Amino acid sequence: MTDTVRTQVAIIGAGPAGLLLSHLLAKAGIESVVIDSRTRDEIEHTIRAGILEQGTVEILSESGASDRVRTVGNRHEGVELRFAGEGHRIDFEALVGRAVWLFPQHEALKDLIAVRLAEGQDLRFNVTAQRVEGAETDRPRVIATDAEGRPLEIEADFVVGADGSRSVARAAVSGSSTGGYFREYPFAWFGILCEAPPSSDELIYSNSPNGFALISQRSATIQRMYLQCDPDLDPNAMSDRQIWDDLQSRVDGHTLIEGPIFQRDVLRFRSFVAHELLRGRVALIGDAAHTVPPTGAKGMNLAVADVVLLNNALQALLLDDDSRLLEAFPETALKRIWKAQHFSWWMTSMLHVGPDATDFDRLRQVGELRSVVESEAGRRYLAEAYTGWPLEGR
Amino acid sequence: MTDTVRTQVAIIGAGPAGLLLSHLLAKAGIESVVIDSRTRDEIEHTIRAGILEQGTVEILSESGASDRVRTVGNRHEGVELRFAGEGHRIDFEALVGRAVWLFPQHEALKDLIAVRLAEGQDLRFNVTAQRVEGAETDRPRVIATDAEGRPLEIEADFVVGADGSRSVARAAVSGSSTGGYFREYPFAWFGILCEAPPSSDELIYSNSPNGFALISQRSATIQRMYLQCDPDLDPNAMSDRQIWDDLQSRVDGHTLIEGPIFQRDVLRFRSFVAHELLRGRVALIGDAAHTVPPTGAKGMNLAVADVVLLNNALQALLLDDDSRLLEAFPETALKRIWKAQHFSWWMTSMLHVGPDATDFDRLRQVGELRSVVESEAGRRYLAEAYTGWPLEGR
Repeated sequence: MTDTVRTQVAIIGAGPAGLLLSHLLAKAGIESVVIDSRTRDEIEHTIRAGILEQGTVEILSESGASDRVRTVGNRHEGVELRFAGEGHRIDFEALVGRAVWLFPQHEALKDLIAVRLAEGQDLRFNVTAQRVEGAETDRPRVIATDAEGRPLEIEADFVVGADGSRSVARAAVSGSSTGGYFREYPFAWFGILCEAPPSSDELIYSNSPNGFALISQRSATIQRMYLQCDPDLDPNAMSDRQIWDDLQSRVDGHTLIEGPIFQRDVLRFRSFVAHELLRGRVALIGDAAHTVPPTGAKGMNLAVADVVLLNNALQALLLDDDSRLLEAFPETALKRIWKAQHFSWWMTSMLHVGPDATDFDRLRQVGELRSVVESEAGRRYLAEAYTGWPLEGR
Repeated sequence: MTDTVRTQVAIIGAGPAGLLLSHLLAKAGIESVVIDSRTRDEIEHTIRAGILEQGTVEILSESGASDRVRTVGNRHEGVELRFAGEGHRIDFEALVGRAVWLFPQHEALKDLIAVRLAEGQDLRFNVTAQRVEGAETDRPRVIATDAEGRPLEIEADFVVGADGSRSVARAAVSGSSTGGYFREYPFAWFGILCEAPPSSDELIYSNSPNGFALISQRSATIQRMYLQCDPDLDPNAMSDRQIWDDLQSRVDGHTLIEGPIFQRDVLRFRSFVAHELLRGRVALIGDAAHTVPPTGAKGMNLAVADVVLLNNALQALLLDDDSRLLEAFPETALKRIWKAQHFSWWMTSMLHVGPDATDFDRLRQVGELRSVVESEAGRRYLAEAYTGWPLEGR
C-alpha cells in the first residue's frame, strides 16, 4: 500500500539548494517536504569544499540558516594568482568592497539540517525518488520508496528537483534524464588533505609549466591542496614525497609547509546545463540544473542564486496566484548560469595546461595572466565574478 | 662588382615599422638606409585596414610623420559588440578617456614615404635583401640585389629586419627563417568593399550563430565589411545577394545599407611570434617579429610599439655607447607582444564560431559577451587593450 503525503512544495534533495529553499519557503509560510536518498550522516560527512560568495553568506546568515558561516567560516579578502614565478594578489576588498568565505559545504549542511529539524520541517532521509509525474498538471507528484523500501507518493502544488547531478527530476523537465549541454575537460584535480599549518593566509591559484595547483586551507592544522592531473590518475600511485615535490614545483617561488598526507581523491571536471529548467509545475535547481568545474568556486553559489529566484517565484505563485516570476525563472536563472559557466571555463583555461598545449598556447596564457593582473579593470572584472554578481530578486 | 653602402642603421622593409624607425632615428641624428623589395607604387596602393591606437596616432603626428592621420583619419570613441540580437556600445572615451583612429595603413605609408624622401632619406625601392651577415660582429651587413639585379651590400652599425611576415632577416636572428611560435585558426575573413553610405558611425563586431561579421567604414561612399568564412572560400563563389543576405543575418537587429560590391578578398588568420627578436646587432620588429589575427586590430600598433623601444635602444647604443636598453629590448617587447597575442586571440575566440563549436560553446560565448558588456570593469578591460596599453619608453 502506497503512503501518500500532501504538501505545498515537494523538494527532492537535501543538499544546500533543497534545504535552503525549504527554509526560505517556511519563513514565508509555505510548507514543504524534503526527501533525500542518503542518510543524514552521509550528507553531513561527505567533505566538500566551499567558497561562499558574499551574497550567499548574507542569505545564509540573515535568514537564520547558518550563524557559523560567519563565526566559524574564514573571510578571505583576496586570492593570489601565481605565474612565471611571481604571485599577484587580487584584492577583493579594495577592488569591489566584497569578500568570500571559506566554509566547507558539509558544515553549511549541518547547520541547515539542524535549523530545519528544529523548526519541525518534514525532512526524510533514506527516501529515494523514482520519478516525478504530472508536471503539466496542478498536482505534480514525486514517486519514491522510503527507508524500508515501501512506496511513498508526495503530492504537491509544485515539485523541485534539487537532487544533484544524477537528478531523477530532470527527466520530467527536459524529457530525458541526460538532456543538456555538456563540456568535458581533459584533466582533473588530485586533491589532498594534510596535517600542516597553513602555507598561505589566502588561496593561491598557480599556473606553472607543470600544470595548475591550488593551495587552500581547512584549519590551523589541516590543509587542502589540489594538483591538476590526468582524469585517470590512481591517487595512490604517487608517494607523499612525489606529491610534495610536484606541488612545490608548481608554486615556484613560494615554499609550502609540508606534512603527512592523510586523504587523497581525484575530482573530475565537467560542465553541464540542463536543456530545460522548468516544465509546468516542476523546476530544477542546483546541480540538477547545472554543474561547473571547481576552478571558479561557483558550484554552491549558483545553487543559492537559483534558490533566491525560485523562492520568489513560488511565493508569488502560491501566495498570490501570480505565475509571472515563475515563467521568467528559466531565462533569468540561465543568464547567471551561463555567466558562471563562462567564468568557470575562463579560470580553468587560463590556469591549467591542456594536454595538447603548444608553446604558443603557454606563452599566450602568461600574456593573459599578465594582462589581468596589470590592469585594475582586469582584476576587478575577475573579483566581481569571484565574489559574486548581484543576486537578482533579493 | 658589388656596390657597397655604409650607414649607421640598415633597415630592411619600408612598411610602417621600418619607415617610422628611420624617421625617429633621423630626428636623433642617426643615419639609416631603408630598402624594400616592392615598388613605391605597390607599397602605397596595397590596401590594408588601419585601426590606430591613440599612442600610435600621437607618435605619428607629434614626430611629424603624418599630419593626415588626425585631419583625414576618423576618430572613433567606441565600438559596438553585438550578440543575441542586441548591440552594446563599448564607450572608449567614457571608459578610458582614449580613442582610436580609422586611417588605412597605406595612407600612413604615403605620408611616411613623402616625409622621409623630403628629408633626404636614402630609401631604395625594388631592392631585395637576400640575407643578413655578421650579426655577432660590430659591422653587420645586408646582402641584397638592386632594381637592376646587381649585387648591393649595406654595411652598418646595426641591422633591423622590418621586412614583414616572410622576413629574410629572421634567419640571422633565430637561426631559421621560420623559427617561431605559431597558431593557426580554422577560419578566415571574407572582406568586401562596397559603394554605399555608412551603415554605422562606429565599427560593429557581431557574434551570431552564423558566424562573426565586422562592419567597418572607409569613407562617406565606400564601406568595408568582413564575414567569418572558411579559409578555402572562393571569394567569387557568392553572389552580391548572397553576401548581403549573409551579412544582414549576422548583424541581426541592425539593418545594413546595401550597395554594389566592387572588391572581394579572403584574409587568412595566423598568429606568430619569432623565437628570438635580437642577436648581436640585428633586431626584428613589426610583422617580421610577430603576426596577429586582425580581430584585435593590433598589427600596425604592435609594430609602432616595437619601433618606440628599438629607437630608444639604438639611440643609447649609437649615441652613448650604452647597450643596456638594447639588451632589455626583447624581454620588454615580448611582454607587450604576448599581451597583444592574447587580446587578438580573445577577441577572435569570443566573437567567432569555430567549426567544431558545440551548443555549449556557443552559449558559453554568449555568457562571456554578456559578462563583459554588463560590467564596467569588463568593458574597461577591453577598452584599455583596444585603445592601447601605455607605450614603454615614450
